[in-house]
Amino acid sequence: MTQQDLQVAGIGNAIVDVLSHAEEDLLQQQDLAKGTMTLIDEARAERIYAAMGPAVEMSGGSAANTMVGVASLGGRSGFIGKVRQDQIGAIFAHDIRAAGVAFTNEPAPDGPASGRCMILVTPDAQRTMATFLGAAVGLGPEDLDRQMIEAAQVTYMEGYLWDMPPAKEAFLEAARIAHAAGRKVSLTLSDPFCVERHRESFLDLISGHIDILFANEAEIMSLYQTDSFDAALQQVRDHCEVAALTRSEKGAVVLGREEVHVVDAAPVAKVADTTGAGDLYAAGFLYGYTAGYGLYDCGRIGAIAAAEIISHFGARPEAPLKDLVAARL
Amino acid sequence: MTQQDLQVAGIGNAIVDVLSHAEEDLLQQQDLAKGTMTLIDEARAERIYAAMGPAVEMSGGSAANTMVGVASLGGRSGFIGKVRQDQIGAIFAHDIRAAGVAFTNEPAPDGPASGRCMILVTPDAQRTMATFLGAAVGLGPEDLDRQMIEAAQVTYMEGYLWDMPPAKEAFLEAARIAHAAGRKVSLTLSDPFCVERHRESFLDLISGHIDILFANEAEIMSLYQTDSFDAALQQVRDHCEVAALTRSEKGAVVLGREEVHVVDAAPVAKVADTTGAGDLYAAGFLYGYTAGYGLYDCGRIGAIAAAEIISHFGARPEAPLKDLVAARL
Repeated sequence: MTQQDLQVAGIGNAIVDVLSHAEEDLLQQQDLAKGTMTLIDEARAERIYAAMGPAVEMSGGSAANTMVGVASLGGRSGFIGKVRQDQIGAIFAHDIRAAGVAFTNEPAPDGPASGRCMILVTPDAQRTMATFLGAAVGLGPEDLDRQMIEAAQVTYMEGYLWDMPPAKEAFLEAARIAHAAGRKVSLTLSDPFCVERHRESFLDLISGHIDILFANEAEIMSLYQTDSFDAALQQVRDHCEVAALTRSEKGAVVLGREEVHVVDAAPVAKVADTTGAGDLYAAGFLYGYTAGYGLYDCGRIGAIAAAEIISHFGARPEAPLKDLVAARL
Repeated sequence: MTQQDLQVAGIGNAIVDVLSHAEEDLLQQQDLAKGTMTLIDEARAERIYAAMGPAVEMSGGSAANTMVGVASLGGRSGFIGKVRQDQIGAIFAHDIRAAGVAFTNEPAPDGPASGRCMILVTPDAQRTMATFLGAAVGLGPEDLDRQMIEAAQVTYMEGYLWDMPPAKEAFLEAARIAHAAGRKVSLTLSDPFCVERHRESFLDLISGHIDILFANEAEIMSLYQTDSFDAALQQVRDHCEVAALTRSEKGAVVLGREEVHVVDAAPVAKVADTTGAGDLYAAGFLYGYTAGYGLYDCGRIGAIAAAEIISHFGARPEAPLKDLVAARL
């Protein structure tokens, strides 16, 4: 693939997921807030891992999942993120390339181990995440593949990057590169706690740099500190060109400058694990957007991709999303 | 768990599986014989991995899967095997302990990396395996947990161990320890190519040391170099006390000194991946045997456990087998 014709470039934490079924009491015992992501250090990662049941390892990372989703839809995507040269890092790099995503970052020869996210899936199919960022912490402006960003119609970044100062700098630099090349910049708010941690600077970022915003109900309400989804919706309209606000089984609201679409969730026979729902919604939406679909259809493709990912364990598609969209759009 | 009351101790290669969906032409391109296990070196492992699609990592290893199955059935089991002190080794050790299996071997501080088995699952649900043994190669008599073997009603070993001279020595030493303690010794023939490689010494081993033998149709026919399953069945009767001969969807034949049982396969709605079918059959059978069930019921428990494992991706149970047996036996 030449980078001349990329649809989406994603920047995010390069992470391998460690997924396990868990009972609610394990969350309490490990002091993890259900449905959210907690950043942990290596010692706490060891403690949680020791307390977890048998697990399955699968490449993850929010923006990385989104880029794999774009590729699975038949789109051309690239990823920027940081692993260390170790066994976990080799798994991440193999899987993203094998999925057809361009990934040019070399693994760090030393420093912290590659990042891992322990994902506890409770019997209600909700996922609770504890992330040891590891080598992903080292992502900085020097890791940006400038050509990739200039080549992509949209550069997409996860809000989680805002937790580390060098990644935040990389984030802002990437937005500048993209805009200078006449491209669009997109952000997902990632997690309500992530919004809590960075509310003020997220507000500045969004009004100054973001063209396409993704958020779920809890995140957008936290951003604008309101109890009303409708009030948050009115505010975000003034701050970016496009916003896609997801509401789980209630579907999503997609806002453009002059249009509002209410898009239903796609049907799922049985929800097995909600891990990756937001990531794959963004994949479908951005694939549609960069392939020239209207905003309503972007929302529908997002819903179809999200429905596939929650029908099974893990945040990477099991079947080519391209075929699903061809059958269901 | 005290080792005083173990039902089964397993000895085998400690391996993490790298599972991926694959098309038939990848097998040809990588020169892998469909449905079998090929031993590969690290360089070939790198080549196959680079050619594979995105994968999922999950602890595996034939006898290790069997011990996890025994634990999932509510039985008390232990495992003896060798990993290196690395990320893959840590995954193996975590998963087997988290499944409730006693595992006392320390990881090797140096030497080859922990073993991996690349498993290519074709659209017909058949699995083809390429194994880089890595640290598992280092297993020798010094790694035997003597107390564990003496404590277990049955010591179970995989035929794959026979590929490495020190593991073969460990194998024979373990059989001596078990018999000296008045215990039973069990073997699975593992793979038809493994039988080809070691036919003569397997024949000596079986008549001299094995009480309970597991083999599938291809393996037992290769062992006795006959084209007839029935002829192989007549021969094996004279060589061990109990033999369980599996025939995929045709069920299994269980032979005792004075009894023969033909046991049907348990129904499966849809076969997703045959990885682990033999391992979990042995788990069910040995759990039943050491819990005091008759041979026919041992065969039925084996069939129920095998049916669970082939209904999903991977060789470790997704649901507690204990509950399935309670519902279906």
